[in-house]
Amino acid sequence: MPLKAIAFDAYGTLFDVYSVSSLVEDLFPGKGPQLATIWRDKQIEYTRLRTLCDKYADFWQVTGDALDYACAALGLELTPGSRDRLMGQYAELSAFPENAEQLLRLKNAGITLSILSNGTPWMLDQAIKASGLEGYFEHVLSVDAVKRFKTAPEAYQMGPDALGCDAKEILFVSSNCWDICGATWFGYRTIWLNRYGLPLDRLGVNPHRIGSSLQDVADFALEPNT
Amino acid sequence: MPLKAIAFDAYGTLFDVYSVSSLVEDLFPGKGPQLATIWRDKQIEYTRLRTLCDKYADFWQVTGDALDYACAALGLELTPGSRDRLMGQYAELSAFPENAEQLLRLKNAGITLSILSNGTPWMLDQAIKASGLEGYFEHVLSVDAVKRFKTAPEAYQMGPDALGCDAKEILFVSSNCWDICGATWFGYRTIWLNRYGLPLDRLGVNPHRIGSSLQDVADFALEPNT
Repeated sequence: MPLKAIAFDAYGTLFDVYSVSSLVEDLFPGKGPQLATIWRDKQIEYTRLRTLCDKYADFWQVTGDALDYACAALGLELTPGSRDRLMGQYAELSAFPENAEQLLRLKNAGITLSILSNGTPWMLDQAIKASGLEGYFEHVLSVDAVKRFKTAPEAYQMGPDALGCDAKEILFVSSNCWDICGATWFGYRTIWLNRYGLPLDRLGVNPHRIGSSLQDVADFALEPNT
Repeated sequence: MPLKAIAFDAYGTLFDVYSVSSLVEDLFPGKGPQLATIWRDKQIEYTRLRTLCDKYADFWQVTGDALDYACAALGLELTPGSRDRLMGQYAELSAFPENAEQLLRLKNAGITLSILSNGTPWMLDQAIKASGLEGYFEHVLSVDAVKRFKTAPEAYQMGPDALGCDAKEILFVSSNCWDICGATWFGYRTIWLNRYGLPLDRLGVNPHRIGSSLQDVADFALEPNT
């Protein structure tokens, strides 16, 4: 079945969530990587707990809650000013350096590009603008419309609904292995962008391909047999 | 409304999941605490992902999968013999030292005691026997009956169903803050056993009480106004 479209995860996949680390390090010397890691882990944990319990709060709220937790866990005092700076930085994460060139290759080949993210519409809009990725994506889909975070099926269903094709005609791209497992279970064709050289999660499901950058994604999508 | 029963979480609450650390340290010197932490974190992560995606596998399977991942993440070779020893240890975790005395206080006061756990019936049976806690619990409830892990409402619903009373007449006890948040959202009266001095999770929900050992639980349950 030919590939009709690509759906990209945003956070960690297109935008570097750890690009906040240097500001964190400025504000809390010696704590940058550790705080950034707890912040990210808690953010993801809260999306899952809220979805499991049907207690949705949007990704901006969850991101702030996770930051508050991370600072408390490390015994760091988060002043309102520092909180605003960190959240402001989160709204304008860096894109990975190869993105624009590879997205252009895909777009020029006539493939419909989209984003399917836990982020709010506002956050996604800001991040796209701040990272210079405007104009590449025909659809920017936020789970805020269904009030359930990935990996809930209702979130993944937004892709086929918006793109007007079957999940198996869509290549789903994420650097988050859990997201790839969820998307594969749902029925997407999948490529795991293993940016950090991690082992595959042991969930009894495998992505269709594994790569390490958006160039691998573009190479795979543009292969004659894909 | 008077308290009619208590539902205890098992792993981390009655049984010390980190009691595997010394065997881990014997098998992988210098890696004990780190491996035990990744093992536990992945185990919990996999329960959530499988529940969100309706891909249930039981807690024994998930525990083994998480161990495999943790070893891979640390670049450690897990031989079949070491795997069997670690899983065997997991089946016979230590109880926390104060448990028996405090459970006896509660039982003698006529309060119905139960367990509501992600573990399989077999795992719970083994852990209760190995830690000398036989005879205290009238109900040992495993989410295996509903094929959804906590914090899914279907899992928490097992308590009221088995105990024949309303969730708010049951005191739910867990050392896992996420479990306490889920149980409070569900409608239980809750006490968070904060065994490790962690900050409260930022989920917009608070336990009714916070303690640090089963003695605090018994004290609270036996207060005249509880």
